[in-house]
Formats: sequence, C-alpha cells, structure tokens
Amino acid sequence: MNCNLFITFEGPEGAGKTTVIQKIAERLALENIDVLATREPGGIEIAEKIRTIILNPAHTAMDERTEALLYAAARSQHYFEKVRPALDAGRLVICDRFIDSSLAYQGYARGIGVEEVLSINEFAIGKKLPDMTILFDLAPAVGLARIHAHGEREVNRLDIESLAFHEKVREGYLQLVERYPERIYVVNADQNIERVVEDVWSLLSEAMQ
Amino acid sequence: MNCNLFITFEGPEGAGKTTVIQKIAERLALENIDVLATREPGGIEIAEKIRTIILNPAHTAMDERTEALLYAAARSQHYFEKVRPALDAGRLVICDRFIDSSLAYQGYARGIGVEEVLSINEFAIGKKLPDMTILFDLAPAVGLARIHAHGEREVNRLDIESLAFHEKVREGYLQLVERYPERIYVVNADQNIERVVEDVWSLLSEAMQ
Repeated sequence: MNCNLFITFEGPEGAGKTTVIQKIAERLALENIDVLATREPGGIEIAEKIRTIILNPAHTAMDERTEALLYAAARSQHYFEKVRPALDAGRLVICDRFIDSSLAYQGYARGIGVEEVLSINEFAIGKKLPDMTILFDLAPAVGLARIHAHGEREVNRLDIESLAFHEKVREGYLQLVERYPERIYVVNADQNIERVVEDVWSLLSEAMQ
Repeated sequence: MNCNLFITFEGPEGAGKTTVIQKIAERLALENIDVLATREPGGIEIAEKIRTIILNPAHTAMDERTEALLYAAARSQHYFEKVRPALDAGRLVICDRFIDSSLAYQGYARGIGVEEVLSINEFAIGKKLPDMTILFDLAPAVGLARIHAHGEREVNRLDIESLAFHEKVREGYLQLVERYPERIYVVNADQNIERVVEDVWSLLSEAMQ
C-alpha cells in the first residue's frame, strides 16, 4: 500500500526511539505498507562523515554555529539522497530525529535562537516540514540513566553535556509543541516500551486514515 | 604597529593569491605591522576536517546546499577560533578566500542564489563583512592552465568542474564588485607576479592610512 507520509520521531537519548521505531516498522510491513525506516545521518556516506565530526568528543572547541550548520548540512544530504526519493516513490518514511532536534538542541538549548536555526534548516531542506512528528517526552535524568545503565553505545559529545542542558532541550521541545500543535504529538516515554509502541501506533493509524 | 583590519583575497585557483599573500605578509612584517596571514580552513582542526569532506573528488553525490552549508560551517569555526581573536588583539588579518567565495561559487555559479547563501553565512559569522576585499581577476582558462602546468597540488572536486562553471564564478565575482563597490577592489591577475604584488600593496597602503 502506498502512503507517502513523512513522519519524524524526536526526544532525548534514552527515550526508546530506536527500539520503538523498529517495532513500528515491522508492524507497518505486516500491514503491507511500504515503509522506509531511517535516521539521520541514515547511512548516507557524506552525512555519516559530517556526523563523525559533530559527535567527536575531542572537538571541545566546536563553535555552536558550526555545530548547527553541520547538522543542517548532514540533513540536506540525507533528505535529498534518501528521504525525498522514497517519498516520491510513494513510500511511508519514518525518521529518527529531524529538524526539531536542531531547533531544540541548537536553537533553544544552546541559545542561538529557534528562528535563526529554522532559517538555515529551511535553506537546507526547503520550507516543507514533516507531515507528523512524534515527541518522546521523558525527564532527562531518566533518559541519561538508561544510556549509562545499558552501555549500549559509546558516549558522545552531546551526552556529556550537563543535566541542565538536557533540561533546556526538553523545554525547547515543549515550546515546539506549542508552536506546531497541528504537527507535533507528545507521547509519554516514561512507560514500558510496549505501551509506548501502542501509543505511537494509535497516532500513526489516525494519520494514515 | 597595530592595525586591526580584516582583508580578504578572492579569485579563481591559479590566480597567484597564495604567492602574493606570502610576499605581502613579508613586506608588512618588515614594516613592523603585526600581521596574521591565514586561509580558510586555516589550520583549524575542525575546519580542516570539514574541508576534507567538501573537496573529496569521490563525493560526486554531494548536494549543492550541503556544500554551501559545509563551507559556512568551516568558515564559522575558522573565524571564531582564529580570525576574530587576532583582530581583537589588534592584528592585521589577511585571509585567502572568505565569504565572497561562497557567494560566487555556490550562490551564483551553482545557482542557489546569492541572497540565500549570504543569509547562511550571516548566520555563520554575523553581518560584519571584511574591511577590504581584493579580487584577483583572471580568465578561468588561464588560471586552470596554470594549475595543470605547475602540478603544485592535487586536483580537487572544484577544479574538475567545467570551464563554463568557472566562467560563471568569474561573472559572480564581478557582480559582487558591483554590489559592494566600497569594499571590493579588482586587481588584474594576468600580469607577472611582481606587478600584482605592487598593485595589491598600493591598495593596502591606502587602506592602512
């Protein structure tokens, strides 16, 4: 079944996005929906190389505007090389992190300004935003504790920011919900994973009606 | 002597910018002017890594907007880590390539639009432009012939663009001269190097009065 919606998932690390997206993608496939599950930088060689520069814990001298521009550059490449062609082919695309990450992390939490970061992202991908965005809301302390407990991947340059920074990211996300109430839906990520999957599935089912 | 001007050099590859900047820097030092001669990405680790991604000839899939954002990212890092501190310390800074390269190459020649590329660069470095810009004007065929004849460095992803592309870059630069007549000065780069150095020296001497 063709259903060319572009749906993005947002929220802090440790909120369970990756696991939930995987389960949702499997369920969509069972329903015979042609789905592409991707994440930034999405296996796009150029975008992966950009991401390596951004996340390198040694790059403590990185200017915050450089960081925002690098995310926008990686986003542009991933969008035009992978997301856009899939949508044009009628596929449903679900993507782990997209423009709202930049607005919350660089625009709001780093203090550059949401409008300014929005403008370089519009340069990167145009003015069209995702059809629907699902925000995994979670107290940062809970998310960070999950990352450290699981030890499932290396700790990167953004993980080691202070808890205060991650609190600001959450505030930033919640302000985006107020700004885009017709696009962004909040899911409580502080419940067991099966419940989160169900909540996401309900939202998606409505969107695909 | 303190003289905190920011002076940039622009023009095609093969125009002799690097050699002329070196000779000008030596002459300024003889006059006891505290000068920093730099070039983008200027030995700044993060910016050098970004440049490696941009110029890799294997990256034929690079989206033009990604390219423009990467240049802006490298510029921001070089500017805030190296140029700005030198100016604040009262030094004269001369820089091989800066914002006008992006406006001519990505904005004009690639067709993204000068206004759009200007806006992401203003995000990167703020609205303050260089105090003076010296454009080395040269027919692209002459510049490219010099690069190939000298074999002084590896050919990169921008060198191998068509001659038509490099003609458009020149057109773009000349439009910038019309746009910023009080800032950009043109030097004829199709003369022997000593004459070019003299022409540049005259312009600099006036700027430092």
